[in-house]
Amino acid sequence: MNNKEFVKEITNIEEDFAKWYTDIVVKADLADYTGAKGFIAIKPYGYSIWENIQQYADKKFKEQGIQNVYFPSLIPESLLNKEKEHVEGFAPEVAWVTQGGTEKLEEKLCIRPTSETIFCMQFEKDLNSWRDLPIKYNQWCNVIRWEKETRPFLRSREFLWQEGHTIHETKEEAESLTRRMLDIYGNVVEELLAVPVLKGKKTEKEKFAGAEDTYTVEILMHDGRALQAGTSHYFGQNFTKAFNIKFQNRDGKDEYPYQTSWGISTRLIGGVIMAHGDNRGLKLPPKLAPIQVVIIPIAAHKENVLEKSQNIYEELNKKYRTKLDLRDNYTTGYKFNDWELRGVPIRLEIGPRDIENNTCVLVRRDTLEKTIVELNNLEEKIEELLKNIQINMYNECAKRVKERTNIAHDLTEFEKNIEQNQGYIKTMWCGRTECEEKIKELTGAHSRCIPFEQENIGKTCVCCGEEAKHMVIWGRQY
Amino acid sequence: MNNKEFVKEITNIEEDFAKWYTDIVVKADLADYTGAKGFIAIKPYGYSIWENIQQYADKKFKEQGIQNVYFPSLIPESLLNKEKEHVEGFAPEVAWVTQGGTEKLEEKLCIRPTSETIFCMQFEKDLNSWRDLPIKYNQWCNVIRWEKETRPFLRSREFLWQEGHTIHETKEEAESLTRRMLDIYGNVVEELLAVPVLKGKKTEKEKFAGAEDTYTVEILMHDGRALQAGTSHYFGQNFTKAFNIKFQNRDGKDEYPYQTSWGISTRLIGGVIMAHGDNRGLKLPPKLAPIQVVIIPIAAHKENVLEKSQNIYEELNKKYRTKLDLRDNYTTGYKFNDWELRGVPIRLEIGPRDIENNTCVLVRRDTLEKTIVELNNLEEKIEELLKNIQINMYNECAKRVKERTNIAHDLTEFEKNIEQNQGYIKTMWCGRTECEEKIKELTGAHSRCIPFEQENIGKTCVCCGEEAKHMVIWGRQY
Repeated sequence: MNNKEFVKEITNIEEDFAKWYTDIVVKADLADYTGAKGFIAIKPYGYSIWENIQQYADKKFKEQGIQNVYFPSLIPESLLNKEKEHVEGFAPEVAWVTQGGTEKLEEKLCIRPTSETIFCMQFEKDLNSWRDLPIKYNQWCNVIRWEKETRPFLRSREFLWQEGHTIHETKEEAESLTRRMLDIYGNVVEELLAVPVLKGKKTEKEKFAGAEDTYTVEILMHDGRALQAGTSHYFGQNFTKAFNIKFQNRDGKDEYPYQTSWGISTRLIGGVIMAHGDNRGLKLPPKLAPIQVVIIPIAAHKENVLEKSQNIYEELNKKYRTKLDLRDNYTTGYKFNDWELRGVPIRLEIGPRDIENNTCVLVRRDTLEKTIVELNNLEEKIEELLKNIQINMYNECAKRVKERTNIAHDLTEFEKNIEQNQGYIKTMWCGRTECEEKIKELTGAHSRCIPFEQENIGKTCVCCGEEAKHMVIWGRQY
Repeated sequence: MNNKEFVKEITNIEEDFAKWYTDIVVKADLADYTGAKGFIAIKPYGYSIWENIQQYADKKFKEQGIQNVYFPSLIPESLLNKEKEHVEGFAPEVAWVTQGGTEKLEEKLCIRPTSETIFCMQFEKDLNSWRDLPIKYNQWCNVIRWEKETRPFLRSREFLWQEGHTIHETKEEAESLTRRMLDIYGNVVEELLAVPVLKGKKTEKEKFAGAEDTYTVEILMHDGRALQAGTSHYFGQNFTKAFNIKFQNRDGKDEYPYQTSWGISTRLIGGVIMAHGDNRGLKLPPKLAPIQVVIIPIAAHKENVLEKSQNIYEELNKKYRTKLDLRDNYTTGYKFNDWELRGVPIRLEIGPRDIENNTCVLVRRDTLEKTIVELNNLEEKIEELLKNIQINMYNECAKRVKERTNIAHDLTEFEKNIEQNQGYIKTMWCGRTECEEKIKELTGAHSRCIPFEQENIGKTCVCCGEEAKHMVIWGRQY
């Protein structure tokens, strides 16, 4: 096939964003559909992205004294039922195991949709005194939620994530940990994924089933829809009371500890695709990219080309995640498109003329800009370019957030803005769920959060016109 | 509690090895039982051991060009049924999901007991030409097998493992990969876990459901029982034919590829406990230990002790996994016992007199030998000691294997030997399953493997007296 045909295979991003997205997932070989609805196979290229996220986040968790564990994946029904709001939130979307081997189970078990209940069971056994606190656990695992509408990475029936669960002596300590983990998520998304985040608190309606407060980092996609990228929950004593988890405090009295939980998932891979991608395919920020530099020999049959490419590969690969594309059954043009589709930040081209001049060509994926570089300066130049690409990709997203954020003072303005320029809508709000629901019905937008950074944009609720309590940011969502 | 009481809490290893084992699991805080039979909670100390195994093995896999992926955990019944021997082997021990959310499933799904079928489904979709081969995938994940008899780590209903799945153009390449992965497992167990392995091929009776050949690394426990530590399977074209996985070969003709799979699991943690432990508790080889050096300040209230301990901690922790035990609600004696129970390779004691002399005391967990060390030489001395402990622990196990290996030429000798000195029994064997079953019935020993290193110990089968085909090693098992 020729290059044009190859490029044509991806749906145009402006014409059908949803189809563009699934094209990228499959054609960039990140994941594939399987026979079972909502279950995807995460392939090596997609999984490497996840490994990079894991490594980055896990290191930050460990710096906070958080310890990894692995707890059972199956939860007895009676255990799930212990916290009322939690079971109401999750029971409708769990998968139930009713038979083990040849034996019909007396009590059915659900596959964890999240593990608050299992962790509570263990906390109850382990906790005795204030000296045991805080307990700060995390696990990297799979979870299952029987979603009706599914989409690879964004809403799969099975996904990978980490779930942190901690208990603390005081409310203040637990709240502070909740916020600190949110900051870490913000850092993962901004520093590693090169996507700016909106941070804030979820409304009553949008918070996690069983939580007192849910904090969120939200990101804005290419089409102006929002994605919840990570959440951190403060539970107060809701679960510890329901599970009768007690400790002897410093005064020798029994007390319930304060609890948190927090998670990020393979959904972030979907976020990266939709925040950065374009009509050529995926665009990966250098820090996250499984391959940072791809070397493509030009006229590889000519003298010295292969040897030189190999040398450069060996040098660069010591410092950067480098790939040398030696496939002999594809044209150079095909290879260019293929690696652009896969979003590799830098393409390095080297052919006979370059070798003569002791140079090579670097092409950056984000701007497609070409530079001729002296081989003597290559490492330095690549270092610099990777840094610039990371920053530029972040800035491009930040620019979009700015362009796609509008203020609305009443519902007419809200509707008009979100129709004309889908994105974040900033409004004042009275705090009542009634108004929140009305806005959703009318505009399709959910509240994203009550941002930590409140601004002075008015005094009355965008919906009912009564006295406002908070500034809220709204958006249609994935 | 005082020190003696503390030590008493562990069952004597010679009196009741099974109870000693579960004591260690729980009291060294590796894992805990949960409400659901056969499901354990792997706690931070146990999970760190697993993380060290993962890191070590994963690096070796990647050096072999093996790529990590994540495939669905639920397998439709029809898919599991595709390979006859495989389904017969696994169907009796899987957990079945029959309901998803509010919907009763049309086809029930099993939670993976292993994922050959799921990988085959993907191979069928992905494979076109010989140019796509080999495909070498691995996943780190949980699996569920509904075992009747369960024991933490050794035989849990849920466990963590890695499962590698590869397909190849030729039989030779697949067989060679099968053996190479076995060698890597041998290396993990010998180099990291400090346990010598017995390597060989499983008999027809003991091989994996659906495999042509199963290779194994076996290890011998303190009580002379054997543990299968890792297996690597060569499938030939059994699955690729059943799943209709084809590729166009170099001659342009359709052909079925040759397949392998291989796995190690959290069972290895059980192996480490039972291979190295003693009446004081766990004994961890330095390369594997989550904590390599524990520093215990003596008379911590005295001048300079805490400060000096902190300084040493900061220096050592740069190079070794170090812990400074500052708990003020436990006696020094309690701490000594506690860290011995947890198997930390080196204990460093430092008190006022040591500080005066610019020395400290090092106590090695394997021999309990004490050395006074100049603080100026500390790092060097610790480096050396950790190396020695690793080697000594390996040698101790190797000595046991030697002492507990006996040759038998007939069944009487077999029975006598295994009763008097439980361990490996080396015999000649005719190759018939009939004899293998008779031996098992009579002695409780399973064939461990047909060792790669065959010896000349006779000409006739230990059971029927007819002409022998192989030397086999037998043992009672976990």
